[in-house]
Amino acid sequence: MPVGTKGTVKGLTPEDLREVGAGIVLGNTYHLYLRPGSDLIKEAGGLHAFMGWEGPILTDSGGYQVFSLAQTRRISEEGVEFASVYDGSPHVFTPELTTKVQEDLGSDVAMVLDECPPANASREYHEESLRRTARWAYRCKEAHERRDQALFGIVQGGLSPDLREESLGLTVEIGFDGYAVGGLSVGESREEMLEALALTVPRLPAEKPRYFMGIGDPVGILKVIALGVDMFDCVLPTRLARHGAALTRDGRINLKNARYRTDFGPLDPDCSCEACAGYSRAYLAHLVRENELLGHRLVTLHNVRFSVDLCLRARREIGAGRYEQWSRAWISRYEGSDPAGADKLE
Amino acid sequence: MPVGTKGTVKGLTPEDLREVGAGIVLGNTYHLYLRPGSDLIKEAGGLHAFMGWEGPILTDSGGYQVFSLAQTRRISEEGVEFASVYDGSPHVFTPELTTKVQEDLGSDVAMVLDECPPANASREYHEESLRRTARWAYRCKEAHERRDQALFGIVQGGLSPDLREESLGLTVEIGFDGYAVGGLSVGESREEMLEALALTVPRLPAEKPRYFMGIGDPVGILKVIALGVDMFDCVLPTRLARHGAALTRDGRINLKNARYRTDFGPLDPDCSCEACAGYSRAYLAHLVRENELLGHRLVTLHNVRFSVDLCLRARREIGAGRYEQWSRAWISRYEGSDPAGADKLE
Repeated sequence: MPVGTKGTVKGLTPEDLREVGAGIVLGNTYHLYLRPGSDLIKEAGGLHAFMGWEGPILTDSGGYQVFSLAQTRRISEEGVEFASVYDGSPHVFTPELTTKVQEDLGSDVAMVLDECPPANASREYHEESLRRTARWAYRCKEAHERRDQALFGIVQGGLSPDLREESLGLTVEIGFDGYAVGGLSVGESREEMLEALALTVPRLPAEKPRYFMGIGDPVGILKVIALGVDMFDCVLPTRLARHGAALTRDGRINLKNARYRTDFGPLDPDCSCEACAGYSRAYLAHLVRENELLGHRLVTLHNVRFSVDLCLRARREIGAGRYEQWSRAWISRYEGSDPAGADKLE
Repeated sequence: MPVGTKGTVKGLTPEDLREVGAGIVLGNTYHLYLRPGSDLIKEAGGLHAFMGWEGPILTDSGGYQVFSLAQTRRISEEGVEFASVYDGSPHVFTPELTTKVQEDLGSDVAMVLDECPPANASREYHEESLRRTARWAYRCKEAHERRDQALFGIVQGGLSPDLREESLGLTVEIGFDGYAVGGLSVGESREEMLEALALTVPRLPAEKPRYFMGIGDPVGILKVIALGVDMFDCVLPTRLARHGAALTRDGRINLKNARYRTDFGPLDPDCSCEACAGYSRAYLAHLVRENELLGHRLVTLHNVRFSVDLCLRARREIGAGRYEQWSRAWISRYEGSDPAGADKLE
């Protein structure tokens, strides 16, 4: 899911999104609640109408942004108080409010309000937090009225297997239309993350969508798919693009690298996106170096297309029973080819 | 002519430009010579191939930027020394070099190197300058080899009628494929500018294109058309867009004005551009306030479309013999309607 934080996937129109094959986009409740306001979006006919995107939309609950962006916040049983990242104004998110806000936004999939503690929080804190998150999840379900909107629960519990299991049990017991695994990608290592995910995902109801929040690099995507994850979102493909980094089968390349100045070939010869079909690496490198709007847009188009294509291919390989073999070879080429100018930093 | 300073009309693809009806775009020799380099663009097959635009391109000679951007510059008979605006590196533009650079860029219309003194320079300076500009123009014509590229002369002379006439005579005597009026919009009043233009344009050869360098506001466009100008360029429509200002028949509006937050109507009901057809003022206002890339792009699309449509309409009215009456009514509505949130500052 490409991320449309503020009601737009940065630089792309809905038509662009359709052209690159995006099947669903994510909107951020935290940002949209504050700017331009979910009341205004409701008045516009919902987020679909407001942004002109007819396809599915998933909205998060805003909890992640409250815990990652807010300078000051206070958690109570009732909810969480925080200061707006825009103007410092005070706000309170309760399970009832974030559910109402997402109903106003009219997304197709809404998420429960959860707390997302840092990986290094104490065991006691994780325990207290996951139980409160489960109580909040229950309140979200109670408050949820729209029949045309799915509601997903979120499993927390940090890195302790027994706490993950407790959170999973409490969440599944409430019963949701799908389940997300949250509380990872918050400071732990990639290995720890995959280990926690490997323990959690197989125990989620197999007939419901399983959503891992916050992975977007190609190798990470393939690894979590192998663990049974069905959905994921990340700002990485779009954010990288705005910094001039493009995803290719031979690794991530930094278009600011000198060698691309005179490279008149396409960004990725296997890709049929607008950037690859119409422009050279040299032109894209020029745009990126000059910080031109068109450079951001074209590389964003490519990176989103690349990510969508990767997922579609993964789906085909799963269907053909070849996923493990194929993904191993894919990762090996992506990680091993080390093109000049590659930028392998996370 | 929308301005594509660095080989891109900011935020728009060539396809976008075709869709809004742009018939020709302008490229800046100064910028392209320095970044990415005209040698590199030549290697790419010229500016058309490099930026993917198959329609006509006009390149300026770079002289205007040398005189408006450069901190340090020294003029001699040979040419002009200047420091790059990018890195301060020293460069020399001679008539022969700027002609060669534009041949490398492969534009359809090239311009002679001229000096563009400020309006308040002394009469003596203007006199000396216009004669040197004429000698440079002659050297440009001598150096010009491409048969598939038109070369335009530029009339200077400041605000003095006799100096304008001298410059015009010297330039027309050399003989070019078209003629530009330069050295205006450099600090004089709008009335002075129109007066100087009114004296100059009718004396240019009627069978050759007459190009006025540097006007782009709708009222200004209509006024210079009335004086016989055939071509003009300006960054105004694109620059305004990036500041959230949109052109409409009822004047220029600032989308950051509070009233547009909840205005769910289209930007301009008479316009069929992508921004007007697909989005509300409220959505565009949100994008502009949040400084979203998509906001820059959509408002740019609209402003370019608006300007192109205005010129096409003007052409039709001229053909029908109704130009004066029509343009007077148009200007009156544009200047007089004073919508709330209008931003009439230049």
